[in-house]
Amino acid sequence: MVLVRQEIGDVLRDLRLQKGRTLRQVAGRASVALGYLSEVERGQKEASSEILASVADALDTPISVIMREVGDRIAVLEGINLDVIPDTVPAELVADFDADLMLR
Amino acid sequence: MVLVRQEIGDVLRDLRLQKGRTLRQVAGRASVALGYLSEVERGQKEASSEILASVADALDTPISVIMREVGDRIAVLEGINLDVIPDTVPAELVADFDADLMLR
Repeated sequence: MVLVRQEIGDVLRDLRLQKGRTLRQVAGRASVALGYLSEVERGQKEASSEILASVADALDTPISVIMREVGDRIAVLEGINLDVIPDTVPAELVADFDADLMLR
Repeated sequence: MVLVRQEIGDVLRDLRLQKGRTLRQVAGRASVALGYLSEVERGQKEASSEILASVADALDTPISVIMREVGDRIAVLEGINLDVIPDTVPAELVADFDADLMLR
């Protein structure tokens, strides 16, 4: 079963690392507990919509960018990214494609 | 503040109506309480990732399709759908565009 919170957590962590910020910095700016943000990033806690909005804001990233990235990653997991990835593309290229698309 | 649960609820309701199903049918197939699903559709309750997966399955719709639609709708709300909508497009066309994109 594909769990949305796992993908949301991965995207939030990747965004944070891409921007070179610590958990402490982002948690502080978003006014959420560091331990809680860490659990959200690891897919262990569901982030409420309000917290997701705060964390997105703390990462200077529109929520739509995060949710589209989540949708794209889940599409790859579900093997249905056929509108942009022909199913003849080798797996290693799909992986590159996903990395390129990430956080655009 | 853009609330993800509001958009998720709207997309789930639109999908259900598009498929001509009742709340009772979808709730039954997803094994969730009818009142709970109704609250989720109205954006009043956060759906857990497990429930979202069950409801998506009950709607015969991949989660990625739902999350991409959510991302697209939030992008319109955030006014940053610039990769597909030039910012010179009048608002009424953007509304049509959104409706066309819906549940593709």
